[in-house]
Amino acid sequence: MNKPTPLSGFPEFLPSQRTVERQVIETLSRTFELHGFGNIETRAVEPMDQLLRKGDTSKEVYVLRRLQEDDSSRDKGMGLHFDLTVPFARYVLENAGKLEFPFRRYQIQKVWRGERPQEGRFREFAQADIDIVGRDTLPFHHDVEVARVMLEALGKLTFLPGFTLQVNNRKLIQGFYAGLGAPDVEETMRLIDKLDKMPAEEVGKLLVSEAGLTDEQAAKCLELATITATDDSFVEKVRGLGVESELLDEGLAELATLINATAPLNTESVRVVADLSIARGLDYYTGTVFETRLDGYESLGSICSGGRYDALASDGKTTYPGVGISLGVSRVLVPLVQKGVLDGDRKVPSTVLVAVADEESRGDADAAAQQLRAHNVACEVSPNAAKFGKQIRFAERRGIPYVLFATEGGYEIKDIRTGEQVPADPATWTPQNESDLKPQVVANNEEKK
Amino acid sequence: MNKPTPLSGFPEFLPSQRTVERQVIETLSRTFELHGFGNIETRAVEPMDQLLRKGDTSKEVYVLRRLQEDDSSRDKGMGLHFDLTVPFARYVLENAGKLEFPFRRYQIQKVWRGERPQEGRFREFAQADIDIVGRDTLPFHHDVEVARVMLEALGKLTFLPGFTLQVNNRKLIQGFYAGLGAPDVEETMRLIDKLDKMPAEEVGKLLVSEAGLTDEQAAKCLELATITATDDSFVEKVRGLGVESELLDEGLAELATLINATAPLNTESVRVVADLSIARGLDYYTGTVFETRLDGYESLGSICSGGRYDALASDGKTTYPGVGISLGVSRVLVPLVQKGVLDGDRKVPSTVLVAVADEESRGDADAAAQQLRAHNVACEVSPNAAKFGKQIRFAERRGIPYVLFATEGGYEIKDIRTGEQVPADPATWTPQNESDLKPQVVANNEEKK
Repeated sequence: MNKPTPLSGFPEFLPSQRTVERQVIETLSRTFELHGFGNIETRAVEPMDQLLRKGDTSKEVYVLRRLQEDDSSRDKGMGLHFDLTVPFARYVLENAGKLEFPFRRYQIQKVWRGERPQEGRFREFAQADIDIVGRDTLPFHHDVEVARVMLEALGKLTFLPGFTLQVNNRKLIQGFYAGLGAPDVEETMRLIDKLDKMPAEEVGKLLVSEAGLTDEQAAKCLELATITATDDSFVEKVRGLGVESELLDEGLAELATLINATAPLNTESVRVVADLSIARGLDYYTGTVFETRLDGYESLGSICSGGRYDALASDGKTTYPGVGISLGVSRVLVPLVQKGVLDGDRKVPSTVLVAVADEESRGDADAAAQQLRAHNVACEVSPNAAKFGKQIRFAERRGIPYVLFATEGGYEIKDIRTGEQVPADPATWTPQNESDLKPQVVANNEEKK
Repeated sequence: MNKPTPLSGFPEFLPSQRTVERQVIETLSRTFELHGFGNIETRAVEPMDQLLRKGDTSKEVYVLRRLQEDDSSRDKGMGLHFDLTVPFARYVLENAGKLEFPFRRYQIQKVWRGERPQEGRFREFAQADIDIVGRDTLPFHHDVEVARVMLEALGKLTFLPGFTLQVNNRKLIQGFYAGLGAPDVEETMRLIDKLDKMPAEEVGKLLVSEAGLTDEQAAKCLELATITATDDSFVEKVRGLGVESELLDEGLAELATLINATAPLNTESVRVVADLSIARGLDYYTGTVFETRLDGYESLGSICSGGRYDALASDGKTTYPGVGISLGVSRVLVPLVQKGVLDGDRKVPSTVLVAVADEESRGDADAAAQQLRAHNVACEVSPNAAKFGKQIRFAERRGIPYVLFATEGGYEIKDIRTGEQVPADPATWTPQNESDLKPQVVANNEEKK
């Protein structure tokens, strides 16, 4: 085989880089579990009719076929999932009788989109989703809960840039457009959603020509979308626009509750903002909607999005409302890792290299290594009995901080970063800094921009 | 959507069952890391020409195509990987300049096989692979290393049935056949590999008719395959058959070294056996070969297999020899979980349910929950302010062991398994048994076999 070249859109990490992804997944998982979210994994494939229910994603599905398939094959109708929401909704319906509601779950898996090969577009990427699903009803306090859980999880990823969670409420904007007398509320919302890609002036023109608004109505819709606040002061501002409707009141109350309940979690690097321009294109959201921007990486778009859907799933008899939020793990990490902003500090998990004086004593080195492992110190034994200096360089190239070697009376250990060398008993030795026990994530802020 | 039905061959777990899989993966990962194996993940897809290099698997590949694909698409030649060895070999070649050799890696991922839908055949399943790869050379002591690491990892999964690691060496059997004067060593080995599916007598006939052996040669080959030993006594037995060759000597010495070095790891439930019938069908093995049987589940076949390959990968200039072993995580767990032999002891990660007296005090309940989480006690807050008895039953149905509730003076916590109720400060309370902090795997031995 000649040297293979990477496949566009299918990012892979080197072992040290994978440390970053693993630490992110571990931190997310632990935080979600502390809040009672259980983990599940769903199969990678779903029937095509399920994947194509939402028309606009049809272009992005990878269809599967068995290499030697006959026409009667049942596999024909299968494709790879393009998000974790469609499979989760199916899982809830399939297992409803065995699940306890409200059902909290998190799911961290790869998803696939059959995009044309193109710079910066992923065709395989990892997502981390949390959702809470009720049977028939789901109180609003769960909207607050998912926002707080994701904020807490992201806030623990201290090596990431800061971020802003932008929150809005579909009831607020739909109620506003309806109260204003907009003839086509859905279309109005669809056009407002274009504000991050198009100048307000142009969106205003479209609101008139496509959504049938008057110039004055269009201006009010654009004005609504300029409102942001880190507290419930947005309510006053919306009221100031003089529009009234019951749905608007409901949306204002929900958004105010959410902002007030999440504001205490704000820190220097984490912000929650009511941003009334956020609409989310997807038509299944019915209340709260979330988007998230990463400081200094706004061009990535929203890295963490979600909201409330009053009908995540339904089997005709029972409806399952849900609220959830999905973090684009690869979307955040792949650019930061590829630019060298984030990396692991070593290429192997080993804290210690156990040196080998000669092949005859390899058994002793193995035994010393097992003593270290017995109390949780990861280590590897030198693959050969090269000169001691060579074994040190072997450790150095891998980023292994310590080398253990036998002396006449027992063992000594050398911290190859400082050169310090002290006697050590492999049955009890442990590094002074607990952080040396595992590879650590290093944030190279010089590379940031 | 009507209630969906499971897809044959794509097993999924309920949340409590997923606890089993997660604990297995965590134990494996930690053990591999203690031995210096770094984790990587490779993309799910490989170019079809790579997947089809080994002819006999061509039937089992899932080919991908984008839903709206034109003929010029580059995606045409992609399929889902059917094991983790082909992608790993490609990863080594692609990144050789950035890796340090010997390169130890573990990889725990799903793989896919485009099987016809059929009872008991998985089309998606998880594998856990460890491999050590060298550049140009790789000393034999690494064969011993991978066997010991996998034995240690499996031995830590104490809720699994016991198992037997069966080891043989290709040099031994090929050297024996060659020394015996077999005209077609490869074909002889291929037929001997059928011994687990076919009576010895029939294999003997095939050895004569297909591999061109004399009756006497065939009898010796069958006799060799009956030899097993838990120590190096097999060497004597092989010598007793009176066959000689240099390659046989090499194989005998390697296998004896491996058996002697792994024997100290034998326990009541873990056994290493030299079993000279093990050949492994795959033609890339060149030395040590491994198979593993699970006690009481022999019908599953080998659940953990691997061996030495002198050319895992090659780019024409450099060859990368390797030795590895692959555990069929789904192959072991899916039957045990589906029979109810293994399950998690609760449906949620929560150790505590924080009761809610009325909706006005939900904020206090949230604050108490955050105090518990701050010192690593997973908990959830009751979704509603139902009567206390109802909230207890809510916890019971999920398997949550403790309920915390506010009293006039502070908080009390109830162990709902014993009924014991004591004052508790959510800022410091932690369960008496550390095992209550996380869901545990329960082995229901009554259900076994």
